[in-house]
Amino acid sequence: MRRSRRRDVAPEPAAGNGLLDRRIFLAGGAAIAAGAAGAAAEPLPVAPYSQVPGAGFTAYGQPSHFEAKVARTFASAPGTTGTGASRTPLHLVNGMITPNGLHFERSHAGVPDIDPDAHKLLIHGLVRRPLIFTLETLARYPTESRITFLECAGNGQALNAKNPLPGGAQALQGLVSCAEWTGVRLSVLLEEAGIDPKAQWILAEGADAAGMSRSVPLAKAMDDALIALYQNGERVRPSNGYPMRLLLPGYEGNMNVKWLRRIKVTEGPTMTKDETSKYTILERDGKALQFVFPMEAKSVITQPSPGLAMKGAGLYEISGLAWSGYGKVAKVEVSADGGMSWAQAALQPPVLSRALTRFRLPWRWDGGPALLQSRATDDTGYVQPTRADLLARRGPNGVFHFNGIVSWGVAPTGELKHAYA
Amino acid sequence: MRRSRRRDVAPEPAAGNGLLDRRIFLAGGAAIAAGAAGAAAEPLPVAPYSQVPGAGFTAYGQPSHFEAKVARTFASAPGTTGTGASRTPLHLVNGMITPNGLHFERSHAGVPDIDPDAHKLLIHGLVRRPLIFTLETLARYPTESRITFLECAGNGQALNAKNPLPGGAQALQGLVSCAEWTGVRLSVLLEEAGIDPKAQWILAEGADAAGMSRSVPLAKAMDDALIALYQNGERVRPSNGYPMRLLLPGYEGNMNVKWLRRIKVTEGPTMTKDETSKYTILERDGKALQFVFPMEAKSVITQPSPGLAMKGAGLYEISGLAWSGYGKVAKVEVSADGGMSWAQAALQPPVLSRALTRFRLPWRWDGGPALLQSRATDDTGYVQPTRADLLARRGPNGVFHFNGIVSWGVAPTGELKHAYA
Repeated sequence: MRRSRRRDVAPEPAAGNGLLDRRIFLAGGAAIAAGAAGAAAEPLPVAPYSQVPGAGFTAYGQPSHFEAKVARTFASAPGTTGTGASRTPLHLVNGMITPNGLHFERSHAGVPDIDPDAHKLLIHGLVRRPLIFTLETLARYPTESRITFLECAGNGQALNAKNPLPGGAQALQGLVSCAEWTGVRLSVLLEEAGIDPKAQWILAEGADAAGMSRSVPLAKAMDDALIALYQNGERVRPSNGYPMRLLLPGYEGNMNVKWLRRIKVTEGPTMTKDETSKYTILERDGKALQFVFPMEAKSVITQPSPGLAMKGAGLYEISGLAWSGYGKVAKVEVSADGGMSWAQAALQPPVLSRALTRFRLPWRWDGGPALLQSRATDDTGYVQPTRADLLARRGPNGVFHFNGIVSWGVAPTGELKHAYA
Repeated sequence: MRRSRRRDVAPEPAAGNGLLDRRIFLAGGAAIAAGAAGAAAEPLPVAPYSQVPGAGFTAYGQPSHFEAKVARTFASAPGTTGTGASRTPLHLVNGMITPNGLHFERSHAGVPDIDPDAHKLLIHGLVRRPLIFTLETLARYPTESRITFLECAGNGQALNAKNPLPGGAQALQGLVSCAEWTGVRLSVLLEEAGIDPKAQWILAEGADAAGMSRSVPLAKAMDDALIALYQNGERVRPSNGYPMRLLLPGYEGNMNVKWLRRIKVTEGPTMTKDETSKYTILERDGKALQFVFPMEAKSVITQPSPGLAMKGAGLYEISGLAWSGYGKVAKVEVSADGGMSWAQAALQPPVLSRALTRFRLPWRWDGGPALLQSRATDDTGYVQPTRADLLARRGPNGVFHFNGIVSWGVAPTGELKHAYA
């Protein structure tokens, strides 16, 4: 039992402007008690709801009605209802898992209403024998699970705007979420169909009205791709591809084709509308990089962040999310002085490859101005670049894979705003 | 890229009655293709929903309306609506995470409707200074996350009945679920209050009309207990204790007090109604063990299981869940011949302490009778006992901590039924 008496000493700073060592909370709370609690002067009153029986059971539960504010925000293209995206309220969730009701969605022609008993998946092209799978036949195959993030390739693109976004983590970075996906390895199905030695790519096509289609290297399909059937335990949600989607851990969200109906094994990439008209990385010189698939390491501070005003100087926890499409998050550093000094944050175990990773660091805010930033490093050694670095390489028109460092400005009032460092 | 040509050889059996080696699927699908897929004779028809724009975005998503059958079942005590339990449909979910809408619930007086802004948590008793916390003040404290199972102490008690239950995994074992819980370490709050050297226990009390109250050793409170505020990323669901519950990883579900309003630090256990009238382990000689807190290692096969009939001889995946309140699952063995021979199942990473662990094993069913069982061993070396072993120790009236091996009988029709081996 840990019950040593600790001295009420001021902890050593880990970086400028009040950042404290990440191990301080583990070493014992008393030394840096937030001091936010009130003294208990009288017995707690007994609330009315403690005096009468409460509500009964339900077949499928919902959040408290007091939490209606914890919602996705969304916008559709003019003249459409389902061409657009909805964003996870990153500032209002905690942990690494995104609940299914709040997982971001990006659709190109809305969400089709698919009868799972009628849905079919065709595997054809450069195979020995084309095959058709239904949910019933897929249920005979072995399954695997992967806790992995999905991120829209365009997430964070507002960092490229001339002026800071008048919004926070949800508006700027809310096109990323994390779930436990379970399904059948695509490699098992491809091997059953029999892959032609000439094959190097696959085409994946969705059953939505946009016919969303992307080319994927066969190497990825054989490595860790899943035909995902379950999302956090239950069937994949309609907005995330019900009854089945392609899951390509770490790759651009749009390549994880939803409502998957067809996989064609091919010699080269198919050059679909979705990989020629968009999802390429425009560089400053006007050339574009095509087929850069994994999302690069990124991080964002979610608490505190715009919309969550701080109330007076004192101790706070800085918390946020980091991820990399190339592997595990190795390190997250936090700055409270706009990048002049950095302290290393604690990472919440388990730290999993291609999953969101929660980082946390204590901060003693002195009530003065501050500029909060986070910087992720993944286990390939890649370091999240500054916004200025990215702009220098990409120029003013690039919108995809825009993984620059995000800055939140803190005013003496405790209000936070998106800022450019 | 893995694309070797494999021979279509019959895999070696790993145990009697068709159990195959757990590594076979990893070695390559072709050798044991389920052969369930149909040949593709014509192009896929284009469904109507692929020809018109689909549905637009929503603030908070729901499952497909085709999944209404994936629901909790529930029962209340006569004359009440909220005294009872609802059960997770273990046979219809996959992976390790239970989605919040399907997490089991056990309530003693229904679910109170608590305004989070009015709710208070009192810490008092043998402390230097009693403290009161609100959600707003708790938000200033550091948070941690734990992916952990919760299990009702009475889960599986139907194994004690004279005849097998006319139901399946949900009816027999559905009072267990797993989520990522995030909150404030209780040790941090207790240390801020200042623990009296005489203290050895705490009392935790809920704000429901039952005043659910349990005594917890201070050692556990200081070790890994959380004041849980988030469940799979979003605020704890009402039926799971909104706005805050005690989380005691591995301990009996009821001790993870929901709607937590008070923690009193005490010298000894308080001997509340909830720990004297129930939640004790009755032995054959009429004596009862009190204060056995962690749930012992257990497992259950969820696919196939009653309600999921198999369709003809051939290859199937046997899949299920294992867990231990004492640590990690070290091993799960599966038998298809009622315990005469056992094969080791594959465990889905990450295998986490006190979390549900998914196990999987390929099985070639020959169409004859079979008796499916699973047996968990945890990393303390403890082995899940047989039903007969438990009955010999506990006698016919014990209902709590009933973690015996579960048997599913397979008929040549493919129907499964709960059976006693």
